Amino acid sequence: MRAGHVLRQGWLTVATSSNTLSSSTLALVADIGGTNARFALTDPRSPTPTLLHAQSLRNADFANLQRAAEHYLGTIGEKPRRAAIAVASPVVADEIHLTNRAWSFSRRGLQQALGLDELRVLNDFGAIAWAVPALRDDEHIALCGFAAGPLRGPVTVLGPGTGFGVGLLVGSDAGGWHAVATEGGHVTFAPIGEEEHAIAAWVDERHGRTSYERLLSGSGLSSIDAVLRGLGGDSGHDASVMREPDAIVAAALEGDDPIARRALARFCAVLGSVAGDVALIHGARTLMIAGGIVPRFVPFLRSSDFRERFLAKGRFAAYLEQVAIHVITHPHPGLLGAATALRVPAGVPQESQAR
Amino acid sequence: MRAGHVLRQGWLTVATSSNTLSSSTLALVADIGGTNARFALTDPRSPTPTLLHAQSLRNADFANLQRAAEHYLGTIGEKPRRAAIAVASPVVADEIHLTNRAWSFSRRGLQQALGLDELRVLNDFGAIAWAVPALRDDEHIALCGFAAGPLRGPVTVLGPGTGFGVGLLVGSDAGGWHAVATEGGHVTFAPIGEEEHAIAAWVDERHGRTSYERLLSGSGLSSIDAVLRGLGGDSGHDASVMREPDAIVAAALEGDDPIARRALARFCAVLGSVAGDVALIHGARTLMIAGGIVPRFVPFLRSSDFRERFLAKGRFAAYLEQVAIHVITHPHPGLLGAATALRVPAGVPQESQAR
Repeated sequence: MRAGHVLRQGWLTVATSSNTLSSSTLALVADIGGTNARFALTDPRSPTPTLLHAQSLRNADFANLQRAAEHYLGTIGEKPRRAAIAVASPVVADEIHLTNRAWSFSRRGLQQALGLDELRVLNDFGAIAWAVPALRDDEHIALCGFAAGPLRGPVTVLGPGTGFGVGLLVGSDAGGWHAVATEGGHVTFAPIGEEEHAIAAWVDERHGRTSYERLLSGSGLSSIDAVLRGLGGDSGHDASVMREPDAIVAAALEGDDPIARRALARFCAVLGSVAGDVALIHGARTLMIAGGIVPRFVPFLRSSDFRERFLAKGRFAAYLEQVAIHVITHPHPGLLGAATALRVPAGVPQESQAR
Repeated sequence: MRAGHVLRQGWLTVATSSNTLSSSTLALVADIGGTNARFALTDPRSPTPTLLHAQSLRNADFANLQRAAEHYLGTIGEKPRRAAIAVASPVVADEIHLTNRAWSFSRRGLQQALGLDELRVLNDFGAIAWAVPALRDDEHIALCGFAAGPLRGPVTVLGPGTGFGVGLLVGSDAGGWHAVATEGGHVTFAPIGEEEHAIAAWVDERHGRTSYERLLSGSGLSSIDAVLRGLGGDSGHDASVMREPDAIVAAALEGDDPIARRALARFCAVLGSVAGDVALIHGARTLMIAGGIVPRFVPFLRSSDFRERFLAKGRFAAYLEQVAIHVITHPHPGLLGAATALRVPAGVPQESQAR
């Protein structure tokens, strides 16, 4: 984030020099989303967190996390003794159930199966929060708000992907940083205006309630698109008539599909609305947008109602105007965060201090 | 919060022994809400934060904060050199504007006028967050959820008073705590069901939008009551026909006023709904309800829909069931928090580490 913070090598650069490192010092890092499982190696002794041999695998190609990890380590030919794994789910007990995927695993069982001396499991957006102070200037794009100077906490990290993740980073460069994992994507949607009330009613009918995640995710964009196309009744449950989020984004950016444009514009407006609410609830001075979806249409987001809705919090518009808003473009912020979390001494809780 | 945490004396006990302390070591603490200004003295060298000579003054009796502070110090006959003042507003610049009160002041000007070597200003719910680890077992009531054992962070602190305050405390006893000030009361209300939609429409018409603070505050309870009594048009703007929140609470507890009961029940349900959302966004393991209103009707809250609405977050009910929920009954948690914040070394940001 800072001009003076250039010691850390980019992950691509360092990957080419990994053969100079002793394998016994390397640790495994992973970021397990709802669709993809990302893996890399990291050297916890290097001066700043670095990623080596980053790879993304499709979850659907593997029966479970253990098989995916074994496949990755087999390809690389390394046998690390330590690992940090970020998962898209709450991390409270030994048994981990991924929120948007039928994968589950026991932390102890996985540690044993992979022959690890130490396995740390953390929430994926908690991991991305850890990564923020380690991001280089060319790994994020300033969207709006007050952007110059050193990173100012608290930092809200949020973004749509398979689900809608929310994390928090508090502290400062001087006093150290604390990352906090949250499940903020599941809060209740507050619709504004007729179109959003219609969307909420459509989702309510199918899921009993409407959380922000039901709209701000890949399948959420498909739902918004379905409502705008007038799909109701059974057709709203029929996956064959729903459009893929990739197709909606592509059609919206090409510009000759007014419904896709309206769907993506609504997605941006709802994202702005919840981002303003989360920033108020976190007391945020910086907002980092992460996740696999938004980096595909940053110019569209910039010209959308995102910022207007972010600021539409009555007397607190002036307060929110000061919040610096960035989009993370680093390809693997969850991996970078897992590598950062591994550098915190063992026994210290995930949300506790790292320098 | 913990069985082993009994070193700190209660504020009443210590107040009687203040004449044994040298006046030069005492500091002023204050908590400036929308209705009352609370003051006390504290000895920053004592092993744990303590309050001496706590007094509550009505803002309406003084032209500004300086006059109220001078009145208090004149009564006590002390001239402290250090002070920490908690205010119900964002703390970002020298000039402080209280959100729900026409008072404003310059930090530098107030420091000079009161002859202080050091003046710290912090947000009131940031201060209450600082106070939580210092609360004794008899200064809070367990409401529901998992309540035994040591304090578990992150801790959400929220509550209705003149406004609706939200603060956050992250960390642990072992690693130290960080308090974070937020403006979470101003997020957009997400109504559930017909009655709440009618309330939202009523408030929208008067204020352009509906934040949670417009419902979860003294005047918010009056608004809910007005909607249930069918007040519309101009009468909704006419203070003479609105009932005072104290009168509504009293009538609801007496039990022979069905509309007052319904208004207070709706207030509890909306409080549960936003508390669940804030707990998800904070990744909270503990929720502390503060503010001047809720301690008056804890049994009513316990038998209301508060908990049902707190848990009504779809797939995350099981996660929220583990959150320990308490009501703070300490008479001056903001003062206790200001006294705690004064013990953090100067130059460390408010939201940074204290042990």
